[in-house]
Amino acid sequence: MLNFTYYAPTQIVFGKGTEKQTGQLVKAQNCKKVLVHFGGKSAKESGLLDSVYDSLKENGIDFVSLGGVKPNPVLSLVEKGIELCKAEKVDFILAVGGGSVIDSAKAIGYGMTNDFPVWDIYSRKNAPKACLPIGAVLTIAAAGSEMSDSSVITNDKTLEKRGFSSNYCRLKFAIMNPELTFSLGQWQTQSGATDIIMHTLERWFTAKGQESSEMVDYIAAGLVKTVMHNAPVLLGNPRDYNARAEIMWASSLSHNGLTGPFGNGDWAVHQIEHELGGMFDVTHGAGLAAVWATWARYVYKENVERFVKMGTDIFDMKKPSKGDEEKTALEAIAKMEAFFKSVNMPISIKELGLDLSDAQCEQLAVNCTWQGTRTVGAVKKLGKAELTEIYKKAR
Amino acid sequence: MLNFTYYAPTQIVFGKGTEKQTGQLVKAQNCKKVLVHFGGKSAKESGLLDSVYDSLKENGIDFVSLGGVKPNPVLSLVEKGIELCKAEKVDFILAVGGGSVIDSAKAIGYGMTNDFPVWDIYSRKNAPKACLPIGAVLTIAAAGSEMSDSSVITNDKTLEKRGFSSNYCRLKFAIMNPELTFSLGQWQTQSGATDIIMHTLERWFTAKGQESSEMVDYIAAGLVKTVMHNAPVLLGNPRDYNARAEIMWASSLSHNGLTGPFGNGDWAVHQIEHELGGMFDVTHGAGLAAVWATWARYVYKENVERFVKMGTDIFDMKKPSKGDEEKTALEAIAKMEAFFKSVNMPISIKELGLDLSDAQCEQLAVNCTWQGTRTVGAVKKLGKAELTEIYKKAR
Repeated sequence: MLNFTYYAPTQIVFGKGTEKQTGQLVKAQNCKKVLVHFGGKSAKESGLLDSVYDSLKENGIDFVSLGGVKPNPVLSLVEKGIELCKAEKVDFILAVGGGSVIDSAKAIGYGMTNDFPVWDIYSRKNAPKACLPIGAVLTIAAAGSEMSDSSVITNDKTLEKRGFSSNYCRLKFAIMNPELTFSLGQWQTQSGATDIIMHTLERWFTAKGQESSEMVDYIAAGLVKTVMHNAPVLLGNPRDYNARAEIMWASSLSHNGLTGPFGNGDWAVHQIEHELGGMFDVTHGAGLAAVWATWARYVYKENVERFVKMGTDIFDMKKPSKGDEEKTALEAIAKMEAFFKSVNMPISIKELGLDLSDAQCEQLAVNCTWQGTRTVGAVKKLGKAELTEIYKKAR
Repeated sequence: MLNFTYYAPTQIVFGKGTEKQTGQLVKAQNCKKVLVHFGGKSAKESGLLDSVYDSLKENGIDFVSLGGVKPNPVLSLVEKGIELCKAEKVDFILAVGGGSVIDSAKAIGYGMTNDFPVWDIYSRKNAPKACLPIGAVLTIAAAGSEMSDSSVITNDKTLEKRGFSSNYCRLKFAIMNPELTFSLGQWQTQSGATDIIMHTLERWFTAKGQESSEMVDYIAAGLVKTVMHNAPVLLGNPRDYNARAEIMWASSLSHNGLTGPFGNGDWAVHQIEHELGGMFDVTHGAGLAAVWATWARYVYKENVERFVKMGTDIFDMKKPSKGDEEKTALEAIAKMEAFFKSVNMPISIKELGLDLSDAQCEQLAVNCTWQGTRTVGAVKKLGKAELTEIYKKAR
């Protein structure tokens, strides 16, 4: 087994009615003033925001609020948040929403505690040394940002979408009531499920010859199976509490390090999607589904073993006879693609409603390699030429 | 899914050579004086203790030490530790050892931060409000105390062995180098593996009708399979790094809440063993193996479903036809018992080298019910009469 570090200090308060504990949990943080950060009308109309405000007031907690976070959260709102927090002397951020709101909160937290422009962190010009403490009331099971060390921000001037990871931004607590996800539409629900699966698969695939771990693989395979079993249940009944709960807990475990603590995963699909999301405002999970199988068929020969293991461990396929490994790998890829299709996810960029030109594919590839300064991926290292090909094949 | 809280904030630094990071990790805790707490000669003779001291010195950290912790750690040494820490103004405890050393450190930590006798906590007379911060260099994969909220102390005056759980004692960090477990003998190694399996099984079994979770069951079953696959490898080659590593990571995950966060497990076997351990100084894991199958056969009819699920999920048995559930449950119990036997664990109290009289069985049952003030277990609630029967049957 490879060396690793694992650190997931977030306190999870999971289940029905748990949002009523918000004030109490914030109070335990000994903060003076809170920013309540949220998205749009759904948090207001559902009554969740009022319920959170009430809980804060009952506990005598002073707060200001800032709404307006959209999917693919943007730098301009982050900067607005930092300004507001400075003016109001905020020392704790409460994110009420999904991954976008939490990521925006993380970026504001960085901006409040480091004396350089916050985009410098995401563009790798400067490294943060701290982050404001953050808590969350989660309303979407998808990004896993509630337990992860990462955040992704889109620079709305340059249309670059960039992620950054550090332990400083790990949440103090996350309140997770699956009922709060009942009202999500099918598109958001299934995009979320896809994102969860992908957080585990991106860790599953590594460069050929890297050791895996039996314990970690059991957790990873079990997690993907759990999501694949419960996501279709929600197609029929979006208010199935148990299916919502299984997926919500899987969302956190998928991105807290547990399903792959070794830091040797292949994040190419996320990075390929990030550029689509930056340029076209694509729903993240749907974007992942749209490109995954193309990526998999492009790279699988470089590490057939792990694709075969996906087949045996996740799809309960038989171990192939010698010589049949590639066939099994391709079948496993087809099964995963068929699953995405079965939950109404796109399996091509066209199905995302985009009609990419060759020039756009090239531009996306250039952006994805940060103007040719890096390759992405681990199974196969992908440069501009390979990425252009993948964008074209995935169209 | 039932509501739950999950909180496992310990930073894990896992792998070869990681003990060299001790000083650096302690330094990050901003403490003034450290107690290095350890067991006996193995930590000294292996050179580990010197290596830890060197790392502390290199980082300019002031420390005192206290060795002498034995399996089933005793109150008298805890009290000595508290006295020493008060005299030396210790503000951080570094446990170098296994579960016994960590548990002893936790008890010292409680004693340092609460103004009543520390045994009051374990005897439920008083609740702690804090604990000194603690870190560990782990040398045995077994108790999972490095990530758990629990500790177990034996009062060497009254021979009572009592556990107590609270988040206050969660470790700040745990350094886990599987190589440090190479020198463990077979008895300790397999007792450790048994303890790890039991931490998951005790959460697996609940009162009939309690909901389980698909995600949690996948993790739990995967963990038990991982240990059952790797423990026999160590019978042949105690220096197999990978087997040691799989078991070591499983030990932490088995007792940090992940394999059963709902707080509705059945800890009867642990409690039955605790009394044996308190009275006779039995190796904890071996004691668990000695009584588990007797307990299982005594209670399985009360929740046949979970015993069947142990069969299907852990032993890959076929789902029984209607009417065959009890048969499958008994087969699953026999398979688990056979596994313990296969790794040279005792499957009766006699095989622990003890020849219990009827009166001793009754006394153990009285102790286990805290002089008749409680029942133990969840599948079936066990009072004095039932426990006496189990001790007798397990002889």
